[in-house]
Amino acid sequence: MWTFDHFPSATVKQKYGVTLDQTWLDHVRRSSVRIAGGCSASLVSPEGLVMTNHHCAHSCIEQLSSAQRDFVKSGFFARSPADEARCPAMEINQLLDIKDVTGEVQRATARVSDTKFFDIQKAKMAELEKACAGDSEEIRCEVVSLYRGGRFDLYRYRRYQDVRLVFAPEFQIAFFGGDLDNFMFPRYDLDVSFLRVYGKDGRPANTPEFLAWSTERAKAGDLAFVPGNPGGTSRLHTVAQLEFERDVELPTSIARLSEIRGFLTEYQRRGAEQRRTANARLFSVENSLKALRGRHQALADQVFFDSKVRAEKAFRTKVNANPALRQQAAPAWDGIAAAVARRREQRQAFDALERGFRLSELFGIARTLVRAADELSKPNGERLAEFSDARLPQLKQRLFSKAPLYDELETALLGFCLGKVREELGPDHPAVKALLGDRTPDEVAAHAVRTSGLRDVLLREKLFAQGKPAVQASQDSLILLVRSIEPAARAVRKRMEDEVDGALKKHGEMLAKASFAVYGDTLYPDATFTLRLSYGTIKGWVRDGKQVEPFTSFAGAYDRATGRDPFALPKSWLEAKTRINLQTPFDMVTDNDIIGGNSGSPVVNKSGQVIGLIFDGNIESLGGEYGFDGRVNRAVSVHSDAFFEALDKIYAAKRIVEEIKPGAVRGAESSVPR
Amino acid sequence: MWTFDHFPSATVKQKYGVTLDQTWLDHVRRSSVRIAGGCSASLVSPEGLVMTNHHCAHSCIEQLSSAQRDFVKSGFFARSPADEARCPAMEINQLLDIKDVTGEVQRATARVSDTKFFDIQKAKMAELEKACAGDSEEIRCEVVSLYRGGRFDLYRYRRYQDVRLVFAPEFQIAFFGGDLDNFMFPRYDLDVSFLRVYGKDGRPANTPEFLAWSTERAKAGDLAFVPGNPGGTSRLHTVAQLEFERDVELPTSIARLSEIRGFLTEYQRRGAEQRRTANARLFSVENSLKALRGRHQALADQVFFDSKVRAEKAFRTKVNANPALRQQAAPAWDGIAAAVARRREQRQAFDALERGFRLSELFGIARTLVRAADELSKPNGERLAEFSDARLPQLKQRLFSKAPLYDELETALLGFCLGKVREELGPDHPAVKALLGDRTPDEVAAHAVRTSGLRDVLLREKLFAQGKPAVQASQDSLILLVRSIEPAARAVRKRMEDEVDGALKKHGEMLAKASFAVYGDTLYPDATFTLRLSYGTIKGWVRDGKQVEPFTSFAGAYDRATGRDPFALPKSWLEAKTRINLQTPFDMVTDNDIIGGNSGSPVVNKSGQVIGLIFDGNIESLGGEYGFDGRVNRAVSVHSDAFFEALDKIYAAKRIVEEIKPGAVRGAESSVPR
Repeated sequence: MWTFDHFPSATVKQKYGVTLDQTWLDHVRRSSVRIAGGCSASLVSPEGLVMTNHHCAHSCIEQLSSAQRDFVKSGFFARSPADEARCPAMEINQLLDIKDVTGEVQRATARVSDTKFFDIQKAKMAELEKACAGDSEEIRCEVVSLYRGGRFDLYRYRRYQDVRLVFAPEFQIAFFGGDLDNFMFPRYDLDVSFLRVYGKDGRPANTPEFLAWSTERAKAGDLAFVPGNPGGTSRLHTVAQLEFERDVELPTSIARLSEIRGFLTEYQRRGAEQRRTANARLFSVENSLKALRGRHQALADQVFFDSKVRAEKAFRTKVNANPALRQQAAPAWDGIAAAVARRREQRQAFDALERGFRLSELFGIARTLVRAADELSKPNGERLAEFSDARLPQLKQRLFSKAPLYDELETALLGFCLGKVREELGPDHPAVKALLGDRTPDEVAAHAVRTSGLRDVLLREKLFAQGKPAVQASQDSLILLVRSIEPAARAVRKRMEDEVDGALKKHGEMLAKASFAVYGDTLYPDATFTLRLSYGTIKGWVRDGKQVEPFTSFAGAYDRATGRDPFALPKSWLEAKTRINLQTPFDMVTDNDIIGGNSGSPVVNKSGQVIGLIFDGNIESLGGEYGFDGRVNRAVSVHSDAFFEALDKIYAAKRIVEEIKPGAVRGAESSVPR
Repeated sequence: MWTFDHFPSATVKQKYGVTLDQTWLDHVRRSSVRIAGGCSASLVSPEGLVMTNHHCAHSCIEQLSSAQRDFVKSGFFARSPADEARCPAMEINQLLDIKDVTGEVQRATARVSDTKFFDIQKAKMAELEKACAGDSEEIRCEVVSLYRGGRFDLYRYRRYQDVRLVFAPEFQIAFFGGDLDNFMFPRYDLDVSFLRVYGKDGRPANTPEFLAWSTERAKAGDLAFVPGNPGGTSRLHTVAQLEFERDVELPTSIARLSEIRGFLTEYQRRGAEQRRTANARLFSVENSLKALRGRHQALADQVFFDSKVRAEKAFRTKVNANPALRQQAAPAWDGIAAAVARRREQRQAFDALERGFRLSELFGIARTLVRAADELSKPNGERLAEFSDARLPQLKQRLFSKAPLYDELETALLGFCLGKVREELGPDHPAVKALLGDRTPDEVAAHAVRTSGLRDVLLREKLFAQGKPAVQASQDSLILLVRSIEPAARAVRKRMEDEVDGALKKHGEMLAKASFAVYGDTLYPDATFTLRLSYGTIKGWVRDGKQVEPFTSFAGAYDRATGRDPFALPKSWLEAKTRINLQTPFDMVTDNDIIGGNSGSPVVNKSGQVIGLIFDGNIESLGGEYGFDGRVNRAVSVHSDAFFEALDKIYAAKRIVEEIKPGAVRGAESSVPR
């Protein structure tokens, strides 16, 4: 997970005999894009064609569907450019440049107390981001904290806000095997979608930098590079933080997600429409759940945990051996442990009031309106982070999204959330009394969803534009619900930021500096949902004493099919069986270090050509949150040959085949950057 | 949790100045009974009247209900003896005597290997139980392992198999506050029911030993004794076992129960009948869930966990200081750690195949029939423990219970179980293929429940009586389903017993002996769902710096009522408000050491008179699984005065009031044992 500006080309050269020059790096970097919601993607044609996963476009596909036309089920293919359908709430970002702002950020927080640290650093970062983006709606700037605050970089992105769906296969084959096979291998998923970015003029964007398709079939042992945006890792966590994760944070989150999963599973059993409308939610819950369980399993593994304990001991010994370093860094471990202890105390109230309503879209919309009314009247640097000028465009796009909301599901989920908040804080807590009065959670939810006007995007736009007076005067049931706990919610947030987050940042920065002093930058920083490059090879692994081969084939998918979800092949596949070369590679594994956020990343060969599309990791890779184990961690991708077999022979998607076909209009050569 | 034959009367005398002589102990012991399903109770009249919790009789109350007459909702009162309604599946046991069989059991397993230990010990225990009970259906004998195998006692019980429901209030007041207030205090629950044991002749049993009601109102500081059957504690667990609980067992169980909870919560939202039929299940799931979360919280508390680590270290130091002891006991810690490591490996398959169907009543019935056919043809000592002669009567009572089964709920839950087994073992596991073939879990469940004849008790009786040939020839869908995985299920069970349970028993016994040698019997043994006696006083505690008073009053219940579940008072209570003395004590707390299984225990004063009825512990008491903290652990009970206020003024249950009224027919004196 190297940053592009510190990629260890020398190591790669030494290890594999391959030279990646700056041109190669620049080309791959410029062809890689990010989906604002949390995925990676790449440009694969000069006309703005974007390749990513089906699951990264799932919300869009669902939002474009209706009870009558369910594209999740049937798949989607725009036979002509005019059929490309705009995603109601999708944004794609392309990294333009990176600037080191470490000095500026660190100078602002030099010698400030733990409790002020968070606010002052946030203000400085907001100032830098604002200065970078200016008033442009088409630029997004973000200060990224690397090495736990050991380095700060300012990332400048171009924003594509008009993103259209070009192609998606049926959910059944995109997610063949469903939750059961998620994070597993062997695998048979065509987890693929094509999007297209459009310019302000409503025409496909001109994207001269893009990745060409490989002209050769990738095979075992081939080099594999993965550019993408790994979302986050915790490899620099101290033992105190890891214990908190293992004993408190993960078990709590897993239990909560498990309960939601059970709820949604039974909700889906009500009927076909409930199945359709809750599908994306359940998918997202199950995906998170499996990821968190994998992490917990890693920490519960005593050998792994002991290795983290030993590593910390070794680091501390080195720090203590250097008096200057010792004086500066040694107190940081205690500072972090103390902050973690405070988080233990504050966690329940914070989770209930600040994170407890995530399942309810409508509550989220109402809360954003209420907070925006307050926050936007403050100077940029003093706002809650998500309301800083730099993040406003993204916030508006979500707030004004025309994505459909389903009353029955919203009512069920808001009721669920209210019930959990009551359970966590207890029925006598003032915030709970404010939310519910004498009513039950389901009653309050039903009333709020039924009577609120916030499904209407125009009303949201109006309230947002009119700001504080309008929001304060609003009698909308959901606005009133949000406002009833706003003081309490803000108080727990403030307390967490002042007493916990600030101290963690400050002491983390100290440890990061010590780590630099001891180890240099021979390690890459924790993932931060920003662009990184991983190197590896196509390679199986050994599980339970048995070799797992790195490829599957189309034949395997037909063998595994039972005709019943999640092992039902779509009709299109059953009909096309005789036309397909069943020996074509389907999915594959590589030993790249990736993590959530890398979904949709291309896999490229040493020539920078597409050989695959990342869509998952194996179950062993989930411990990658805390440390990478190259013996067993594997990234799972769709083999590039599978695209042609499917697009051509199953979906007759000639238009896309022509657009991405290697060596056609523009082969590997023509796509080398100017 | 002292056993009656080792009660520290001298300590009580010294601490409180009160003498409890053998007569007192014998009287309280003989008046205490046990509900076979897992609760405690007491005899409170000479005509077999039994006092226990509403939640201990919940299944019976639900089983006696129908869609038309819902006694869970309306409450139940038999106005005349003829109205007392027989519980379809309830048995009450009265402890007759205890015999020390330590020598016999330990001699049988002296010098046997880890893997044989489990089977040989089981065979010896079955032999002793069989010899004790003979062929009597009215006697049950159990060998109880105390101090982890440091002592073995043979308990002989009288079985009352005709148990009838006399009185139960509405669920709304028995469980006022619902899951939210469960394990909480202050509390306002009338978690009470009265049952009556009947003899073979169909007449109320003659029970000359019973507890009389207190003639004085119990007040703060009064002595409180709790006889009852605490279900199980793990206070002698080694650190390796505690780590396994904290990191693996508890998080896994909590996640599983959370998922079932979410599923049942949404299932209940379907309608009134679904709410009614799933009520007891959800209650039981939520109750377990909260208990396990409390345990996990205790182990996640670093101060508490460190205290366990330190205690083990101190114990090991003492063991190591004595060469003879050291040679004998020191390897036991490693032996236990190795067994725990094997449990980690085997856990998933064992949980899936042996524990994974607990939610499905019908699957359980089918499995019992299939296994009984095999097991009952073996000698007593070689059978799976639950098929030993001593346990057969209980098994038959459950198997032939006429309790209603609800197809819709059974289908949903069997489908859920099958889905989880597939998830845990993976879709390619042979056992999963055997269960499902190409079908989905819901399809298999729907077919099995729809076509099985096992709802018919007569068919069960027939298959059971005809044994192996009949069961093997049966084409019943559920029998076939069970048989499809029977070899796999038996294999994981055998492996767990041989490789894990045996080693834990054997090495546990070594540590128990060492503990005796070091500490003597100054500690009481872990709870074993057998009769114990706890002493304490009526006493509040300090939570978050605030004093919690030991009593609540009827006034508090009315104050807390919102009119909505779980804070809705029943109509009977709303109507009776003006008749009630609102200052009457309602619930109270004492500092007795109790745990699950103590539910339904009486609280008696120094004169052996009833002053309360245990129904819960506070949230702090849940860590009692691993250690008792007298500063904050509290037992929660209904105050004895609340009975009269409610029975008399709300329920007009004169018949019961007369039967239990103190000083009437038989005061404290007349109930003193012969």
